[in-house]
Amino acid sequence: MAADMIDLIKPFFLDLQNRICSCLVGLDGKAFKEDHWTHKQNQGGGITRILENGLHIEKAGASFSHVHGDALPSAATLKRPELANTPFQALGVSVVVHPRNPYVPTSHFNVRFILVGSIWWFGGGFDLTPYYGFAEDAIHWHTMAKAACDPFGEAIYARYKKACDDYFYLPHRREQRGIGGLFFDDLNTWEFERCFDFAKSVSKHYLLAYEPIFAKRKTHAYGERERDFQCYRRGRYVEYNLLHDRGTLFGIQSGGRTESILMSLPPQVTWRYNWQPEAGTPEAALYTDYLIIREWLSLPLSTPACL
Amino acid sequence: MAADMIDLIKPFFLDLQNRICSCLVGLDGKAFKEDHWTHKQNQGGGITRILENGLHIEKAGASFSHVHGDALPSAATLKRPELANTPFQALGVSVVVHPRNPYVPTSHFNVRFILVGSIWWFGGGFDLTPYYGFAEDAIHWHTMAKAACDPFGEAIYARYKKACDDYFYLPHRREQRGIGGLFFDDLNTWEFERCFDFAKSVSKHYLLAYEPIFAKRKTHAYGERERDFQCYRRGRYVEYNLLHDRGTLFGIQSGGRTESILMSLPPQVTWRYNWQPEAGTPEAALYTDYLIIREWLSLPLSTPACL
Repeated sequence: MAADMIDLIKPFFLDLQNRICSCLVGLDGKAFKEDHWTHKQNQGGGITRILENGLHIEKAGASFSHVHGDALPSAATLKRPELANTPFQALGVSVVVHPRNPYVPTSHFNVRFILVGSIWWFGGGFDLTPYYGFAEDAIHWHTMAKAACDPFGEAIYARYKKACDDYFYLPHRREQRGIGGLFFDDLNTWEFERCFDFAKSVSKHYLLAYEPIFAKRKTHAYGERERDFQCYRRGRYVEYNLLHDRGTLFGIQSGGRTESILMSLPPQVTWRYNWQPEAGTPEAALYTDYLIIREWLSLPLSTPACL
Repeated sequence: MAADMIDLIKPFFLDLQNRICSCLVGLDGKAFKEDHWTHKQNQGGGITRILENGLHIEKAGASFSHVHGDALPSAATLKRPELANTPFQALGVSVVVHPRNPYVPTSHFNVRFILVGSIWWFGGGFDLTPYYGFAEDAIHWHTMAKAACDPFGEAIYARYKKACDDYFYLPHRREQRGIGGLFFDDLNTWEFERCFDFAKSVSKHYLLAYEPIFAKRKTHAYGERERDFQCYRRGRYVEYNLLHDRGTLFGIQSGGRTESILMSLPPQVTWRYNWQPEAGTPEAALYTDYLIIREWLSLPLSTPACL
């Protein structure tokens, strides 16, 4: 049964990595470079694909990994001691896209499957980090998030949207990382087939959510001011990933491949001391209207395109 | 007695902040900006000084803080439960200098005094992070580190040099952060007066160590290649401070002032996927000859200026 699950999931994840890369290459024109690697401590490894210095994509990483071993790292079983000293497998696809144009938001997608002995679960989701907010983009993003969830029950979108808001929060800044999306973990309450279908639906809707936003904004004219703000805001992305993101910290602490884990870091970043946007600017609007928890799908239909 | 100690240390720390800022202003020409702040959860606060976009200093922070309260945060007393629920005071000066010229190394200095009930200790040190290595600079830096320690005993330099090498290490990169220097903590084995003298000696020798190196290298000609490498290597500084530095993590987790804590982050940083220097270049020499643990004061006198 365990082998059967892996046999179903692995080809889906590998194909998903291909499809996401094809979509991104379609948006940019440049090809990904590929590295095959093996894990230092456990068996298995992965395929990391990176596109750097494209016309529209400044840096994108799309990584597949499949690691297995005789026992999970102790940090992973602190809360579940019954899973210690049990053979495990972990498969996943992770994607981060840092566009060049500050009007195109950064996006992050992940889907993973963990099997420990006979216990299994799925996790994953997608979230969007704009530099300049557009209400119509935020509504489209969350409409796709909801569409991914709706076939699985009425309450699903609200549950995983809230989990995403909770997870992608920077307490030291009192800011959301972006406008959220979906985040799910420990998913095994349905039967395997249905959980797998949910992971597939989230994967498909990531591209349906991101591709049109990227395509629409990638040629939006911008200047030094917008570029400066983008590089400054990317600092928050670094702070989040290195201070808070459980996946990044677990990967680093458990001896994962550093270059694959840190592929999520933006290509160019600035830190300025105590910088604050001027009231009334689009930069200030990002903080007040987008980096907060809000219900994008309950906005009145008359909401202007750019809040 | 406790009040007496604070009465001695506070004016010294405030004067030290002034002296360090004067020295840096002397090297650059631009003045520091100053912010007074109060702590969110405890009493007290600090004075943060920042110099950004100077001629030679791209970003420098020199911060004084004095925080006191009825009980240390629980994270700080996990290993010393007898100190829980006891009034405390913490005073410190922290300095990070990010020069513009890639031939000038980044430096970090800290000195702190903690008082919990009737228990007190000093901590601090200084360490150097070059982008391009010069053996003569490394030898000068460590000569000053040793000079700071020698009046206090023969074994002191070796002990705190080793502690510095142990502390400023990036396990996920298997690299030292730089060429080290001194790191001491929990210092209360001598009587108060002597411990304070040691903190004074380390403070004085930080400037004696750094100022001549900065002055000598700040007009060294450089191009895009050296600037790119500097920005890339600054990524390691960010990774260290956000993933590993106990002071940064403690400050963030205990509700310290984020902008003062993160003043240590470099102004412009790049991340490139899996970049490696070419063998035989000065960039490769940084990794092989400088970002390793070595005894700089045991080098033969005939060591060339640039290894």
